Amino acid sequence: MQYNGKAVPAVVIRRLPRYYRYLGELLKQDIRRISSGALSEKMNVTASQIRQDFNYFGGFGQQGYGYNVEYLYQEIGAILGLDEGYRTILVGAGNLGHALANHGAFEKRGFRLMAIFDNDPKMVGTVINGVEVLPDEEMEAFVKEQQIEIAILALPKAATQKIADALAEWGIKGLWNFSYVELKTKKNVAVENVHMIDSLMTLSYKIKQAENE
Amino acid sequence: MQYNGKAVPAVVIRRLPRYYRYLGELLKQDIRRISSGALSEKMNVTASQIRQDFNYFGGFGQQGYGYNVEYLYQEIGAILGLDEGYRTILVGAGNLGHALANHGAFEKRGFRLMAIFDNDPKMVGTVINGVEVLPDEEMEAFVKEQQIEIAILALPKAATQKIADALAEWGIKGLWNFSYVELKTKKNVAVENVHMIDSLMTLSYKIKQAENE
Repeated sequence: MQYNGKAVPAVVIRRLPRYYRYLGELLKQDIRRISSGALSEKMNVTASQIRQDFNYFGGFGQQGYGYNVEYLYQEIGAILGLDEGYRTILVGAGNLGHALANHGAFEKRGFRLMAIFDNDPKMVGTVINGVEVLPDEEMEAFVKEQQIEIAILALPKAATQKIADALAEWGIKGLWNFSYVELKTKKNVAVENVHMIDSLMTLSYKIKQAENE
Repeated sequence: MQYNGKAVPAVVIRRLPRYYRYLGELLKQDIRRISSGALSEKMNVTASQIRQDFNYFGGFGQQGYGYNVEYLYQEIGAILGLDEGYRTILVGAGNLGHALANHGAFEKRGFRLMAIFDNDPKMVGTVINGVEVLPDEEMEAFVKEQQIEIAILALPKAATQKIADALAEWGIKGLWNFSYVELKTKKNVAVENVHMIDSLMTLSYKIKQAENE
């Protein structure tokens, strides 16, 4: 994955949200400055790893003196694109869709949920967390007119690829996919898969290996 | 993370569920043998990476001839502990809890959901996907008597650490946590956090950087 044209390892990118989260917690505790050593202890990453990670993005300065927490929080937020206010739709208003629509953290992070789509007539017209459920037939016009950037896919496995292809056609920029499929998309559509079962299998591995120790 | 006393990088462990998933799909298509080259193409990992990954677990043999898909599937499943039939409870029967309880993939992977707990009297006594919702007060006795091994935590943030501590006390082996907190647990309890919002932030990063390219 690139940053300003330079390659950045995927593992480094994946640590950015964690840094962002921790820095947000520090701010809540009114902690304004932190050394890489103290941040390292909280994050369970070595201080030199933190400095290396930050160097991909210009370093954020002031090693000896410690980092300015608010500045770092804002800079990492901007790198993550959290200041963009991405225009978002949710496709699929089942249990998982409901859970996602009710998840307060999204709006706090600047993702604007503008509509929910479902093909179940009983669901259409209902309102989840202040957002109306529209029928699938209206999706194309809505995505194009409202210039939707992100679609959250909380659909049955069989329906996902087809809807992903259509959304890519209609100009979507990113897909956040909860179906247990590996989406194939056009190159210019970003995809993040949340394969929850993979995480459960990793837990299973940890338990099993802990028993063998 | 360890395997038979040897350290295995966490990224390698995290690829195991993906291998398992792909091999399962190959089996469904009745593909019985696959070269590391062909597997590499499907997995979007280099063939040498695959061989390196497998070497942590003894190699699984037969490079020139290709891998036996069923053997590999079963071996990786065993390494992941999927043959253990872990005794599982779900704590929290909200939208996310419902989505998790209805997620067919868990039972297919050998996780046995034995009870669901919720402190909402309206929820207690209902049945989700064939599993009864019990009141929180019965959790301690149930976990101890039924020797529950895994607890899925789909709870409000504020309640999670307290219940995690209690479950650790009652002998649970692993926690699958969906709350947006970093759980601190006793060392012998395995924890997997599903921080969905981190994944959304990563998607946001990818979209933003794609625009800058």
